[in-house]
Amino acid sequence: MRVALTEVASRDGLQNEAHPVSTEQKIELIDRVARAGIRRFEVTSFVSPRAVPALSDAEDVVRGVRDRDRLVLEALVPNLRGAERAAPLGLDAWVCFVSASETHSLANSNAPTYEAIERLRPVIGLADQLGIEAIGSIATAFGCPFEGDVPIGRVVDVAHRQADLGFRTIKLGDTIGSAHPSQVTRMLAALNQALPQVEFVLHLHDTRGMSLANVLAGLAAGGTAFESSLGGVGGCPFAPGATGNVSTEDLVHFLHLEGHETGADLAALIEAGRWLETVLGRPLPARLLHSSPVGTLVDPTTMKRAVG
Amino acid sequence: MRVALTEVASRDGLQNEAHPVSTEQKIELIDRVARAGIRRFEVTSFVSPRAVPALSDAEDVVRGVRDRDRLVLEALVPNLRGAERAAPLGLDAWVCFVSASETHSLANSNAPTYEAIERLRPVIGLADQLGIEAIGSIATAFGCPFEGDVPIGRVVDVAHRQADLGFRTIKLGDTIGSAHPSQVTRMLAALNQALPQVEFVLHLHDTRGMSLANVLAGLAAGGTAFESSLGGVGGCPFAPGATGNVSTEDLVHFLHLEGHETGADLAALIEAGRWLETVLGRPLPARLLHSSPVGTLVDPTTMKRAVG
Repeated sequence: MRVALTEVASRDGLQNEAHPVSTEQKIELIDRVARAGIRRFEVTSFVSPRAVPALSDAEDVVRGVRDRDRLVLEALVPNLRGAERAAPLGLDAWVCFVSASETHSLANSNAPTYEAIERLRPVIGLADQLGIEAIGSIATAFGCPFEGDVPIGRVVDVAHRQADLGFRTIKLGDTIGSAHPSQVTRMLAALNQALPQVEFVLHLHDTRGMSLANVLAGLAAGGTAFESSLGGVGGCPFAPGATGNVSTEDLVHFLHLEGHETGADLAALIEAGRWLETVLGRPLPARLLHSSPVGTLVDPTTMKRAVG
Repeated sequence: MRVALTEVASRDGLQNEAHPVSTEQKIELIDRVARAGIRRFEVTSFVSPRAVPALSDAEDVVRGVRDRDRLVLEALVPNLRGAERAAPLGLDAWVCFVSASETHSLANSNAPTYEAIERLRPVIGLADQLGIEAIGSIATAFGCPFEGDVPIGRVVDVAHRQADLGFRTIKLGDTIGSAHPSQVTRMLAALNQALPQVEFVLHLHDTRGMSLANVLAGLAAGGTAFESSLGGVGGCPFAPGATGNVSTEDLVHFLHLEGHETGADLAALIEAGRWLETVLGRPLPARLLHSSPVGTLVDPTTMKRAVG
């Protein structure tokens, strides 16, 4: 099966990054991943530069992307101010997010969820006017750091309201890496039944090591679109072992083993991941940066005798 | 569903450990995991102390295990010499392994696979005589570091020969962490069809982040028994980010989220994992040692405003 991937390292991966990453390096990150065969990127976010200083170069990153005619470029556009910044840049899609849980919505968007959805109207209006696709996104869809469990009915309701605004694609964010497979199964079943016309994209984090199990459940439930970040960046750099998004390297490796097509070149992705490690000055969480693709052979004469 | 877990940290987890671990610490490791509710342990291995110096205290570890009447104690017994060492110790089960792949068998057991199986006869004879259960184990069942792919038919054949020797339980070792879910599905389907009287135990490594996805596939294929190691120890300490067995903490956390029962107390396992980190003097790969169980709530006032 063909699986559609969106690379989010230059947005989600870097938004909390303590290590400074230059605009040129972000552009090179996108370029390296694009040369490895990934076509769709969530490039940056037009949030307030005060709120997320690491993404204050949003315009320059978008303008700097090379070979952009061959790529599909998305950016997060949280409000009309962000939309006005994004408008002249010729992006292919704007991503409009809300939080499924009220507390997260208040903390993140300064408004309760339904009010935050209503506030997206003028943004979508402008996107329509400019012929730009508007994509919905639901943060904390699988759990909230403040409230814990988020009922599936609530997520279906939020997705309904987003779909009513005209979104035909909605991203489901496992913001804190709390999703587990049977939850993914039930969530996609409920959403696909309620909104069969909408395509759902799974945005998974690997905080508790469950991301690939969730991908497996997502695929079995009919999901064909996933987001990932090169190196698995996105975790808090001050929490050792904490990881961010499922890594592009590990996801592509996994999907290929499972017999799916991604269009990506795993070796080139791993090379790009190693480059990103030198940029950020630390080992990154992607497993394929610290092991080898399945099938890599070892010379038996180097073996230490011990069973496993 | 009830899932049976075997803790292998004191054997597989420590056999390649560079950091010295005392006999007392191994006994305490087992004790801490036992107090967290795990009942079955692969305690140690009676391999040649020259081959695996880290396990040369095998007898003392077995003798030192506390509350052993409440526990089921297994140990690896590779040959008659090992069996003679293990015989007086009153173990509940001896684990007799072979490698599915010829090159690994030659490197590890100094004999081709079928010859290695034949060599187990006197070991099983002694176990029978002593009323000790003999458990089979197949290393490189999902891939060989020297040969790569191991055909499922080969594993079925090896399992058949082990079953013919009288084993009623056989462990399937994903020695190099190369298994992927659809392979686990096909493997268990083939084995369950060929040998319906045998119980198969999945021994998974997390080298490429696929272990919990493989657990999911294993459960779906009817598997109810898994092995894991506290902290996820077992990786090469000289390869940053490399991980060993699926960690007991992450596995128990995952199984509980998926609605299964293990009898284990996750908080106590995490505490034991933190203790093992202090013993080994480094952060261990278990994700739950660097994140929190799903459902742990954060105070919203501590939130940094940024979306994920």
